[in-house]
Amino acid sequence: MNSIILRKKRGEKLTKKEIFRVIEGTTTGEIPDYQIAALLMAICFQGMDVEERSYLTQAMAQSGENLDFSTIVGVKVDKHSTGGVGDKISLMLAPWLAAAGKFVPMISGRGLGFTGGTLDKLAAIPGYTFESNGKKLTDLLRHTGCFVIGQSAAIAPADRKIYALRDVTATVDEISLITASILSKKLTEDLNELVMDVKCGSGAFMQNLKDAKALAQSIALTARQAGVETSCLITAMDYPLGRFTGNTIETFEAFEFCKPQGIYIETAQKLYGSRATMTTTEKLVAPLVEITVELAAAMLDKSANKNQQAREKAIRQLLTLWQDGSLYRKMQDWVSSQKGSLAGLKSKAHEILAAFEKSSPTNVFTFKAKNSGYLAHADGRAIGNLMVDLGAGRKKSTDAIDDRVSLEMLAAHGTECKKESVILRIYKPDLTDADRAQIQSVCEKALNVIKTKPKPQKQILARL
Amino acid sequence: MNSIILRKKRGEKLTKKEIFRVIEGTTTGEIPDYQIAALLMAICFQGMDVEERSYLTQAMAQSGENLDFSTIVGVKVDKHSTGGVGDKISLMLAPWLAAAGKFVPMISGRGLGFTGGTLDKLAAIPGYTFESNGKKLTDLLRHTGCFVIGQSAAIAPADRKIYALRDVTATVDEISLITASILSKKLTEDLNELVMDVKCGSGAFMQNLKDAKALAQSIALTARQAGVETSCLITAMDYPLGRFTGNTIETFEAFEFCKPQGIYIETAQKLYGSRATMTTTEKLVAPLVEITVELAAAMLDKSANKNQQAREKAIRQLLTLWQDGSLYRKMQDWVSSQKGSLAGLKSKAHEILAAFEKSSPTNVFTFKAKNSGYLAHADGRAIGNLMVDLGAGRKKSTDAIDDRVSLEMLAAHGTECKKESVILRIYKPDLTDADRAQIQSVCEKALNVIKTKPKPQKQILARL
Repeated sequence: MNSIILRKKRGEKLTKKEIFRVIEGTTTGEIPDYQIAALLMAICFQGMDVEERSYLTQAMAQSGENLDFSTIVGVKVDKHSTGGVGDKISLMLAPWLAAAGKFVPMISGRGLGFTGGTLDKLAAIPGYTFESNGKKLTDLLRHTGCFVIGQSAAIAPADRKIYALRDVTATVDEISLITASILSKKLTEDLNELVMDVKCGSGAFMQNLKDAKALAQSIALTARQAGVETSCLITAMDYPLGRFTGNTIETFEAFEFCKPQGIYIETAQKLYGSRATMTTTEKLVAPLVEITVELAAAMLDKSANKNQQAREKAIRQLLTLWQDGSLYRKMQDWVSSQKGSLAGLKSKAHEILAAFEKSSPTNVFTFKAKNSGYLAHADGRAIGNLMVDLGAGRKKSTDAIDDRVSLEMLAAHGTECKKESVILRIYKPDLTDADRAQIQSVCEKALNVIKTKPKPQKQILARL
Repeated sequence: MNSIILRKKRGEKLTKKEIFRVIEGTTTGEIPDYQIAALLMAICFQGMDVEERSYLTQAMAQSGENLDFSTIVGVKVDKHSTGGVGDKISLMLAPWLAAAGKFVPMISGRGLGFTGGTLDKLAAIPGYTFESNGKKLTDLLRHTGCFVIGQSAAIAPADRKIYALRDVTATVDEISLITASILSKKLTEDLNELVMDVKCGSGAFMQNLKDAKALAQSIALTARQAGVETSCLITAMDYPLGRFTGNTIETFEAFEFCKPQGIYIETAQKLYGSRATMTTTEKLVAPLVEITVELAAAMLDKSANKNQQAREKAIRQLLTLWQDGSLYRKMQDWVSSQKGSLAGLKSKAHEILAAFEKSSPTNVFTFKAKNSGYLAHADGRAIGNLMVDLGAGRKKSTDAIDDRVSLEMLAAHGTECKKESVILRIYKPDLTDADRAQIQSVCEKALNVIKTKPKPQKQILARL
């Protein structure tokens, strides 16, 4: 191990055998943590090339249980996001692609820090169970076309151990390690194809396009090397996605999205069909709609990300499945197949919505524009961290979450605001004066209203 | 700790408080090894400046017991060597400087790898005890003027822990860490002055003058920052120093050296006085004599390393103490004060010498010149490692040593050899055919006889 660390420290390329030995020794505990930590730090300085990344990913994927869906005939596809604020897109994609005849065996993670986690959103659905029995998962996938479960301890244990070490040794931000960590879990899903949503902006890990492209390229190349066809979309992440953020309310929003009527599908029709002028609320949900539709198209047809015609065809097919109710029915099937109660979720969400609508609620803080102008900037990370502080997310992995804490956006990028017009509202069951002061202070910095109308923001920043 | 690692990883300077916190947490075990390992690797890439090195050294020195000789009036001075092959110089310096009225409280280490350790040499003296009681050490120092003991577990425990971690995380070769490790132990000796012998060449850690100068400068600046006046000499280390290598035989050589008659003092008289032509054996011991005298002069007068007149005066005084028997008597006093038996050592050494002189010994291998010419190159590391392989040293810290395994050089740099003339002899009690084959093979590569007479080698390569 010492010579492996030394070779990486000197900038040499590790062999497949060395990388597998490191991961095996990490999994069994044979290699002590201090040697792993030293190697991780050396990797931070010297990096790993695509081949090394691919071996690392494969070794980590093979360190634990691997799902086997070889008995299911069809394309198995999943999406992974690098994490954002208000990102509930997985919840629409799983049933949508299942409705389109694909198989989506989705293993999702918990949120940590300013980004949310799909697992936490699903936990807001009363009764929803996270099955982990391989045989039952095969049945779920065969019958429903999708499932969404959590990462069990048996999946990629080497990643779990290395992630924990990275977290306490200042080695989280290295691109080969990020790539291997993301992909190792996905490789256990027995996928044919993968679509990556690499988020970029103030509310994402990658804050600029250069870093986001580097990560997207690393993931695409490494996944392909490991035998999984991968498309990457780099998408904007500055404003919270959609109207709502907070585990209960945004899970509810995801299911509202799937309905064959309502503002989401109407926004999609304007985006992809009529090009008619949108209302403020439609503009607000337009980024969520666009990114979801584009990711779905890339999942439906692996050539859609590069080929305009294929993309348009995929989108037409997806809109049909949305309009004819197939998406919404599949969503209902999926949730009930995992014993979740949509009625239960709806009733939890309605309590929150009712609080927002009260004339003078004690548990809602309303943030208003100080001056007239246009909303022109959002610091997604600050807003995400604010939600964590209020209890909607976790600072450390053992923190409890209050899935009722909710944020509602009422203005979008470019929205014209009058003085005192509401930009956002935050609901917290036991809202204190200190909370109010903090929300006001964070939002004043995080959300800027300026005099001149800003340029419209692109949602799809790049495709790889 | 995570933020300290992150700051160093980014190349930022750590504060005194941060460094002391790290070392305190290392000593108590509060900081886990993996975080220390990650920090060490980050230091390998980003380094530490002189101030950081000084804080690190002081924090490590203060992590355990510190000797206190404040009741002794006089200059306390020690020498430290970065390690070489056949380097028995400490054994002459301790009594020499004591004879000159200085106090030498020497804590020495064990050998590891191709370099020897003073502690192992002393262990070859029957009865020699390594006292560690502070009160008794003060008495020894007051009455004899010197002692040489081993590093106990109570001295600089943080260095012990960090050294063990560096050894297994490929982080041994970073100059701030080397500096702090060397100096932290020396700082516990309550010294006023220190002389460093930074060895440079094939048989040293520093293989070129640039690296040796960098280390010497780092040690000198860091030690001065910590309040210890330090002179550094960079000395040649390619050939084993002196006639003999191997713990018993070279300890015996050290004591022979101290006698007021014999080849060593005669060589010194030719080097520093008469400038008469030397015999082959005198040429062989000349590097040992010169380096010992120059280090002793730097210890006797801290200005000697920079000032030619002071140096010459110090050397004159040292030669007088040698000639009038003061050095030899002090050496005898010192060894008996630590309960060592010189008679016992002599009888062990004589067995080895007798084996060398036998007409056809079964336990001696004789390496001869293949062609006539001049001895012009020695790979000290290869010779040191050969001795380790034969049992004279340790590959790992738990290895046992056979203090009888001995090497005798019969040719020096520039010695004219005939075909079949003996270059060196190696004694091993249970010498096997495999040993013979290995010695022959290593020596053929490590010792070159060439046709043209090589330029004389300088022994003192630089002074700082």
